[in-house]
Amino acid sequence: MSKPPTIPPLPAALRDSRFMRACRREPVDMTPVWLMRQAGRYMKEYRDVREKVAFKDLCRRPELAAEVAVTAQKKLGVDAGIVFSDILLILEAMGAGLEYVEGEGPVVSQGVTAPADAERLKVADPEALRYVYDAVRQTRAALPPNVPLIGFSGAPFTLAAYLIDGHGAREAEKTRLFMRQHPDAWGALLEKLVKGLTGYLWRQAASGAQALQIFDTWVGVLGPRDYRQYVLPHMRTLVAELPTGVPAIYFGTGTAGILDAMVECEPEVIGVDSRTDLGAAWARCGAVAIQGNLDSTVLFADPATIRRAAQNVLDSAAGRPGHVFNLGHGVLPGTPVDNVRLLVDTVHEASSRM
Amino acid sequence: MSKPPTIPPLPAALRDSRFMRACRREPVDMTPVWLMRQAGRYMKEYRDVREKVAFKDLCRRPELAAEVAVTAQKKLGVDAGIVFSDILLILEAMGAGLEYVEGEGPVVSQGVTAPADAERLKVADPEALRYVYDAVRQTRAALPPNVPLIGFSGAPFTLAAYLIDGHGAREAEKTRLFMRQHPDAWGALLEKLVKGLTGYLWRQAASGAQALQIFDTWVGVLGPRDYRQYVLPHMRTLVAELPTGVPAIYFGTGTAGILDAMVECEPEVIGVDSRTDLGAAWARCGAVAIQGNLDSTVLFADPATIRRAAQNVLDSAAGRPGHVFNLGHGVLPGTPVDNVRLLVDTVHEASSRM
Repeated sequence: MSKPPTIPPLPAALRDSRFMRACRREPVDMTPVWLMRQAGRYMKEYRDVREKVAFKDLCRRPELAAEVAVTAQKKLGVDAGIVFSDILLILEAMGAGLEYVEGEGPVVSQGVTAPADAERLKVADPEALRYVYDAVRQTRAALPPNVPLIGFSGAPFTLAAYLIDGHGAREAEKTRLFMRQHPDAWGALLEKLVKGLTGYLWRQAASGAQALQIFDTWVGVLGPRDYRQYVLPHMRTLVAELPTGVPAIYFGTGTAGILDAMVECEPEVIGVDSRTDLGAAWARCGAVAIQGNLDSTVLFADPATIRRAAQNVLDSAAGRPGHVFNLGHGVLPGTPVDNVRLLVDTVHEASSRM
Repeated sequence: MSKPPTIPPLPAALRDSRFMRACRREPVDMTPVWLMRQAGRYMKEYRDVREKVAFKDLCRRPELAAEVAVTAQKKLGVDAGIVFSDILLILEAMGAGLEYVEGEGPVVSQGVTAPADAERLKVADPEALRYVYDAVRQTRAALPPNVPLIGFSGAPFTLAAYLIDGHGAREAEKTRLFMRQHPDAWGALLEKLVKGLTGYLWRQAASGAQALQIFDTWVGVLGPRDYRQYVLPHMRTLVAELPTGVPAIYFGTGTAGILDAMVECEPEVIGVDSRTDLGAAWARCGAVAIQGNLDSTVLFADPATIRRAAQNVLDSAAGRPGHVFNLGHGVLPGTPVDNVRLLVDTVHEASSRM
């Protein structure tokens, strides 16, 4: 890998922002909140853009990517923006095929069915993902100066799962089988992914991302023993090699059984879905910031239910320093935008009274 | 509901069997083992039968259902048989449509999209499922006299999830949304399911099932607060109404975050998937027998790996009374039968040395 780029020093307005303080587990005036998929199908402005460009093209057009990301942040009043991108883009830079099929989600071709396939894939050339860094740069430039921007990618395990299962498979059976039957090829594949991810995430930070979220969407298919054997060593390397001062947010779904193993890679923030009680998560994870975890379907309910559910999440967090409010997963298509705004306002108001 | 049928007294050979003793958390000579989907596609004898009859027809033909169940038990040497049936059959008896699409799994039609649909469904007439009781009777008659037979059904939540989402949906979003938007209709639907299930499971026990497994395959999509609000009251009623002396095994996947809430319905045995460490599960669940939890993909590995992985599960159970060895989920198609036999022998041998 080429020499890591330089990370720009953090202006005070960003450094002292609610979101960055919470990532460092410092006291805040109110709980910061942002939402996974906050720029998405549920929002009219996003659908209007998507009528003109396909999903992948939107990721590849920095000016449009910045537009949808910034529009969402401003419309909702959330405490952080997130670059408009996808967790799997790095797979193309490794030589795999990647298509987004409407209504089906991503489909990976030229992936991995045998050890030789894993050898054929190359370490991602970070320069091939320049359009992501351009999107980061343009989004950063257009966001308010006190609103941090989050860069991101899929995690090594989840990327490997898409390479091996070919799509989002509920149980990732082929992936679990591959790692067991070909432990050496598995290890080499994850090393390759980590090398590519290091360069990719460094460059996002150098281009203006103040935090980096690592989406390990599928890692919850593993138990703690398998996680520690097949994933943790690689996650340790990745997190250790990310730039200092740029918080790593490590997010997965269905991870209630492995949270304590996941924090062993020492991310600044751990993201949990709505199946884990926040208090129980802290009891197991110890000194780490936690992001989450309102059930996305709550946003379809009436205002009183939304307010009560948000308060329940805040009550589980119980004012501990280091809570970043989020959903347990992404905003669902069809979610009423007014309800999302209500949630953001509720979190701010309710937490400032606590 | 009509008056519950009478449960036959338990012969000593069954009462004192390894499996029944473990369900009651009594000491055993070696850890009992059976495997979810032990009669299935991976087994040649099963495939031979399925070449002649479709899945649903096999469930409806007691002599064939008994044949595949008994063949599997004898071939593997497992400590319990399980009636050949499906978790969703009760839905037909409620007025919903049910088809099994090859390669896709079950598809439910005339299900629930609005509260009125839930009202339209009737309490299952237990007599409509007479073919299941016939299968139980014939399987019981053909099993060795010291090998208990397990009857089963889907759990109220998982049945409702199939009615509402229409198929096995990874996140069961429509279901979570329905229960939140229509709490009264949700409650009435689950009450209806519980009433039907009570009659259905009682009759399986009366026909010769010594234990009853309640498959809550999808309940892991809920967090503990939602589980306690929307599911637990109904599960409590169901478990309380099952016949005394017939252990209830309550199984779900992805339940690491809600195990302590699940045991509050007081089943004799709780089934956990491979994502939860058994020792951690016991620490959270307290005085209950636990069934599980080898990862199904391990059965594709080499003998040494299988032995080591089985030993790891036994080590996590650590000789606590009340361990029923099983997989974390069903035996996968393509699993080598010899490996399954090796697993059963390994569990018996290794646990008798502990």
